[in-house]
Amino acid sequence: MKSPVASLLWRSLRVYQVFGANTDVGKTIFTTLLARTAKKLWKDESVTFLKPVSTGAEDEADERLRHSVQPAHGSKGIRKSTLSPSASAAVFAYMTLLYEKPVPSDDALLAKCRGFAARCAARDNKGWLFMETAGGVHSPGPSGKTQADLYIPLRAPSVLVGDARLGGISQTISAFESLRIRGYDVESVLLFRGDTYENYRFLTDYFQENYGVPVSAVSVPPERQTQDAERDAAALENYYSSKDAGEVAAQVLEQLHDKHISRLSDLDSLAQRASRHIWYPFTQQSLVGAADIMTIDSAHGDYFQTLLPHRDRSSLSSSSPSTSPSSPLPSSAAATTAETAESATVPVLQSSFDASASWWTQGLGHSNPKLTLAAAYAAGRYGHVMFASAVHQPAMSLAETLLAGMASPRLSRVFYSDNGSTGTEVAVKMGLRAARKRYGWDARQKLEILGLKGAYHGDTMGAMDCAEPGIFNEKIEWYQGKGHWLSYPTVLCKAGRWTVTGIDGGGGLEDSAEFSSLADVFDVRAREAAGQHAPYEEYVRATLRGLQTAGRKFGALMLEPIVLGSGGMQLVDPLFQRTLVNVVRSSPHFFADKPTQQPQPPPQPETTDEQEWTGLPVIFDEVFTGLYRLGRFTPSSFLHTHPDISVHAKLLTGGLVPLCATLASESIFNTFLSPDKTDALLHGHSYTAHPIGCQVALESVREMQSMEARGEWDWAIQRGGWLNDDEQHRRQEGAKGQAQGVWSVWPRGFVEDLSRVTDRVEGAWALGSVLAIHLQDKAGSGGYSSNAALGLRDALSAGRPSGHFDDGGPWNVHSRVLGNVLYVMASQVTSETSIRQLCELLLENIQGR
Amino acid sequence: MKSPVASLLWRSLRVYQVFGANTDVGKTIFTTLLARTAKKLWKDESVTFLKPVSTGAEDEADERLRHSVQPAHGSKGIRKSTLSPSASAAVFAYMTLLYEKPVPSDDALLAKCRGFAARCAARDNKGWLFMETAGGVHSPGPSGKTQADLYIPLRAPSVLVGDARLGGISQTISAFESLRIRGYDVESVLLFRGDTYENYRFLTDYFQENYGVPVSAVSVPPERQTQDAERDAAALENYYSSKDAGEVAAQVLEQLHDKHISRLSDLDSLAQRASRHIWYPFTQQSLVGAADIMTIDSAHGDYFQTLLPHRDRSSLSSSSPSTSPSSPLPSSAAATTAETAESATVPVLQSSFDASASWWTQGLGHSNPKLTLAAAYAAGRYGHVMFASAVHQPAMSLAETLLAGMASPRLSRVFYSDNGSTGTEVAVKMGLRAARKRYGWDARQKLEILGLKGAYHGDTMGAMDCAEPGIFNEKIEWYQGKGHWLSYPTVLCKAGRWTVTGIDGGGGLEDSAEFSSLADVFDVRAREAAGQHAPYEEYVRATLRGLQTAGRKFGALMLEPIVLGSGGMQLVDPLFQRTLVNVVRSSPHFFADKPTQQPQPPPQPETTDEQEWTGLPVIFDEVFTGLYRLGRFTPSSFLHTHPDISVHAKLLTGGLVPLCATLASESIFNTFLSPDKTDALLHGHSYTAHPIGCQVALESVREMQSMEARGEWDWAIQRGGWLNDDEQHRRQEGAKGQAQGVWSVWPRGFVEDLSRVTDRVEGAWALGSVLAIHLQDKAGSGGYSSNAALGLRDALSAGRPSGHFDDGGPWNVHSRVLGNVLYVMASQVTSETSIRQLCELLLENIQGR
Repeated sequence: MKSPVASLLWRSLRVYQVFGANTDVGKTIFTTLLARTAKKLWKDESVTFLKPVSTGAEDEADERLRHSVQPAHGSKGIRKSTLSPSASAAVFAYMTLLYEKPVPSDDALLAKCRGFAARCAARDNKGWLFMETAGGVHSPGPSGKTQADLYIPLRAPSVLVGDARLGGISQTISAFESLRIRGYDVESVLLFRGDTYENYRFLTDYFQENYGVPVSAVSVPPERQTQDAERDAAALENYYSSKDAGEVAAQVLEQLHDKHISRLSDLDSLAQRASRHIWYPFTQQSLVGAADIMTIDSAHGDYFQTLLPHRDRSSLSSSSPSTSPSSPLPSSAAATTAETAESATVPVLQSSFDASASWWTQGLGHSNPKLTLAAAYAAGRYGHVMFASAVHQPAMSLAETLLAGMASPRLSRVFYSDNGSTGTEVAVKMGLRAARKRYGWDARQKLEILGLKGAYHGDTMGAMDCAEPGIFNEKIEWYQGKGHWLSYPTVLCKAGRWTVTGIDGGGGLEDSAEFSSLADVFDVRAREAAGQHAPYEEYVRATLRGLQTAGRKFGALMLEPIVLGSGGMQLVDPLFQRTLVNVVRSSPHFFADKPTQQPQPPPQPETTDEQEWTGLPVIFDEVFTGLYRLGRFTPSSFLHTHPDISVHAKLLTGGLVPLCATLASESIFNTFLSPDKTDALLHGHSYTAHPIGCQVALESVREMQSMEARGEWDWAIQRGGWLNDDEQHRRQEGAKGQAQGVWSVWPRGFVEDLSRVTDRVEGAWALGSVLAIHLQDKAGSGGYSSNAALGLRDALSAGRPSGHFDDGGPWNVHSRVLGNVLYVMASQVTSETSIRQLCELLLENIQGR
Repeated sequence: MKSPVASLLWRSLRVYQVFGANTDVGKTIFTTLLARTAKKLWKDESVTFLKPVSTGAEDEADERLRHSVQPAHGSKGIRKSTLSPSASAAVFAYMTLLYEKPVPSDDALLAKCRGFAARCAARDNKGWLFMETAGGVHSPGPSGKTQADLYIPLRAPSVLVGDARLGGISQTISAFESLRIRGYDVESVLLFRGDTYENYRFLTDYFQENYGVPVSAVSVPPERQTQDAERDAAALENYYSSKDAGEVAAQVLEQLHDKHISRLSDLDSLAQRASRHIWYPFTQQSLVGAADIMTIDSAHGDYFQTLLPHRDRSSLSSSSPSTSPSSPLPSSAAATTAETAESATVPVLQSSFDASASWWTQGLGHSNPKLTLAAAYAAGRYGHVMFASAVHQPAMSLAETLLAGMASPRLSRVFYSDNGSTGTEVAVKMGLRAARKRYGWDARQKLEILGLKGAYHGDTMGAMDCAEPGIFNEKIEWYQGKGHWLSYPTVLCKAGRWTVTGIDGGGGLEDSAEFSSLADVFDVRAREAAGQHAPYEEYVRATLRGLQTAGRKFGALMLEPIVLGSGGMQLVDPLFQRTLVNVVRSSPHFFADKPTQQPQPPPQPETTDEQEWTGLPVIFDEVFTGLYRLGRFTPSSFLHTHPDISVHAKLLTGGLVPLCATLASESIFNTFLSPDKTDALLHGHSYTAHPIGCQVALESVREMQSMEARGEWDWAIQRGGWLNDDEQHRRQEGAKGQAQGVWSVWPRGFVEDLSRVTDRVEGAWALGSVLAIHLQDKAGSGGYSSNAALGLRDALSAGRPSGHFDDGGPWNVHSRVLGNVLYVMASQVTSETSIRQLCELLLENIQGR
């Protein structure tokens, strides 16, 4: 899905998609039966029958159908013409959208389907739309994507036509599962009441027990009379009009009607119920009423489907047919007000671009079938299995894949935990112990960590203690900041110029410097050769000297490489971080109070000098910036340095389930070896290395690596304007997937344009999938409590109403702000089209056009 | 699966299960072709063809097959006779196990299949076994369970025969998915090379891209000649001997052979690789070599499939046929030593009862298809979606289900996090803030929690600080115990008598008391009426008075209700915990230093008195004991009291993925309301309320509730001997699922028998699914560092070798010990049969019979 399409949900229009457990199971007959019966029961409503794509083999069946519907208005014409339903309401129409030439893209097809449904909803106050698919659930659509995958974004509730023949039990259950694992709600299973096999008996119990889904059986239709079309039509007419068929269909329709009502009432009530019973993370709930809560119906790719505000909650509930299906009396047309009618034709859902990537977790898109299948495979093979002194394939393969991907001479061990916060606590426990042993301190020695101002590593108490005191934590009872946090120079494109802003009051580092490109800022080795690191080095040394003089003891250097995310989307000058690491590593004398008392442990056989930590263990918290967020497997490659411990989460599972991996060097690991169990790293989680997480992570990491190798981000890398001449040259030489320089999915020109709106924008930067817009904060305070970005956020949230019927419906942007910074984060599968749409919307709102 | 069955894996015997994408897709023809070709290529190996169950409709196809295999030794006889393969090696045998009368249970059928395969492996040094299933993947087996579900425990790698007909693409993909999500490894897809539809072209790309699974196509077999059996047989013979069929089959066999080798070599190498690269939780890795690491191939129900130790690693790798399939030269019989031959016929895998319930997580069994489907549905519908100020159906429904299940007048809010450790940190943040506001302390006031000795709440630093100093945490750099931990009386069956042991040095509480049953111990209200709580009350009051005098300030009372798990499986006298809560609640004067300065906040409209906390907020950490672990939805029901905050994890997701819910009262929630964001509970996780976790938890909790309502534990409750007369009476009156008293899946008589082995057993208890055996610790120290239970653990780990061919193969028990305590924990679906087997094994080993 390259561009947004809103799911098919209207208050007035009940849309059901009809899938078949196999080809030739009677989809068309059942759909016709449902449509005809609906027309009988809801006389003043329109009933529409859409077949978006048709295979050649099904044309015959179509032909047969057209004898059974009325009025079949100019069917041939309609088949080739537009998707507009007739303007006259209350007409039972039959439409087929054949494959067009050229074959439409999946997006175009989805937009057409949605446009068709939107026209139905707009035309009629009330009605039914049945969309028949072609063949079985996994029969390929026009582009080759199978229909079960193709139609996910529309998320129409579904009817599955089961297979009554020999083997049909298996077909029906498997087809159901293929739909279910893609998030479809199959509301009803229909099949013929075959006498020979009686599949319906088994299936009725099966679906009731396992899913609570009703199964309905209808008698077998008359044998086809190929020689005599007229007799065939009469026999079919007879069949459709039979009491058996009519009664079953009426019952099914009533179930479907009820499901529609209950889906709407669920969606309508969720925010209210949430405001009563949910305690939200990181939220001042006195400021968040039910109206502020976003109701998410589903999500696919980069887009949520969210509930649009509405005025009327009961437009359809009054139109239920009489409850006895044997005497179907359509309800009297309730006196609907104009307002009700209007609200009923307005779509219920819109597409919302997930611009926080769901708190920075999304990599391969919401509801990615590959990840679902990976999760389900591991669930089916293992469930969860205990991991202390045990091993299973996904955990081992993931560990090896991560270690290989990091390409670090240092890292050789993988410790699994549940999330970034616990994973950084693990890293701290590792680092502090190593330093304590090396420097010969006892367990009661107060140890601190060295970090950067605005650092954030999570909300568990140990992770919080690694962050500088501030409004995040100052009121939390057990918080006690345990560290020293250095200032740092930042990078921002200001008024079109790439600027490194020095450290406020940072010992002669207050100055700014301009660079001709972000690539030049990131060319740390050239800048080092030019001596640009010297003042940084001096600043760091002076700081360490001061801390030593004050008698403070440190156990680790802990950094978020390149970007401080929660700290306000600050892009740190990479030369500074590189210098900081180098100084710490070369300066054990700043940390040891008795450097010679405790002899260094003899190097282990596997340990080369490069694996041995010096100075302090260096921890990189790559939870936010790692795994292609910034365009590369690891952001440490920008620094041309390797940590002794690194922490990976969020994108690790492609955005599906929590999992964290803390990687460490053998040197750190060896610190915990002894004959005594209590010297071990006594940390564990019940779901340590849970197979679902590991399998999904394995699939995600490998998929992202192979996307890089296949050059799937070339559109951005090549055309984004980010590469300098040298990098362009290397890419042209075929250095795909390697050393791809500094780039972003957000075009350089766009970022520079934004930054030129200087009355509103202080500066902007983009790297990898992240775009950060630092807004001018007129009120002056900046920081987390600033409101400067809220206006822009709200404008993005207003989004794009649907312009016409074929544009995929309304969409907006769900973004989060950090103080005066609004950021928009793409996933690793965001399309060029989506980026273009977002750039337009952002520029419009920021330039005030 | 009610009793263990070991998966089908031998070094010598390559077992493949053949599934069909539908009925009548050529399963039998393909299986015959593979078997015949295998016999040609591996001339000195035996090739066996097993059809465990057959449907009537398939008899015809079977009939046809029997003409194509040779020697078909007395087929009719074999069909009805035993499953013993012929004693003569190197025979291509064809066997069918028809439905027996009475219909065999699933367990019996699986044991028969395994026994058959075990005989094949024992008979021949090398060979192939092809097991053909009946119909499609989900065609029902004898018991009505579909075959895809039925055969999960055997976990034979599989070949899927695809469907070459119209609609066959869809059938093939759906069937594949049904297998995949149950953890099957489908190693090859075979189908006919139909000219009309060419499904194989599409499928070849599809399976390659999505799963890396090869697809092979063979020309269509000759039309069946129903009139002339002889001509039919000749035509088929011709077909099987054709170059096309032979070449394709040879290539497929080579792939299957390679897959077999690589599965073995993976299994063989995993422990070694893990010992090099995994950093294990809570493990002193200098004491754990590769040989100590348990390799888990898969898991189902209560059993892992674990790698048995073996002596030879390469018995089969030398038997590969020549690499060119067009000139198939079977390898010369390598000079295999007797040892190799022996090792080759020994099974590779055994069933291991997961007696720690995978660190106490397992509720509904490993690889439960219902949970898999729930997880996959949520993955397909949402992936993960951000939860701050947003809501989705699974999170909301789970919150409502938990609140309703707790049936507490206090709890009304649900905060989601990732695991028990983070969830208790959230609880602490909630409780401390509430107390601080109530008592008017400022943020820098040092607040502690009140708990029990040996308490454990997790390994993140905040959770650690809630635990008393001890060997778990004394060497951890940032650990700082923040609390006071009371002693408590414990319950144990000693020498057959249910004994409450008083508090060592606990102010006159040192005495023990005997009760006639555990039910009497748990009848806290009767005991209270008899004044038994009075000395507890006095002890608690004296303690609180002392703490107040010492100037200490407390923010919460935090308990693991009923059982302290990590603290050594201590069953606490429930009357003590009840009394402790009651005293704390009625004694605000012990906690406030200026009780009148800060007026109590006016009660909120929704807040009744019962919702308002008094004294201290009471936190129940129900992570281990909650959600039916002890036989009830919540262990607080044993205490007849309700906490203000409760924490739920582990069993919450039935043992599939990490998730935690911290429930709180409106009174606690209101503490955090203000116009200021920084007064909010500033805690959050990226995957907060991830839909997969919520959907799986919803399925799990509802399933356990409905198991209770259906009386699925009646075998234990009725026959376990736990209920007292009154409770028996109430159950007979039909009080199913309600007030089911105190019971365990471990029979009372068994527990009492164990406790009578007084030279080895100090005492034992069982409640719900937990059995704890406190062993006599001759060395004297007890506690975590004790080794008393290790001998018993190792005896259980030796387990039961396979006695004969039809017993499901070897099984053992994988248990964990806590100091001198060995515990065996069942899941909520453990069968009476498994419990009986375990009781026997335990008694044998403990009684030394």
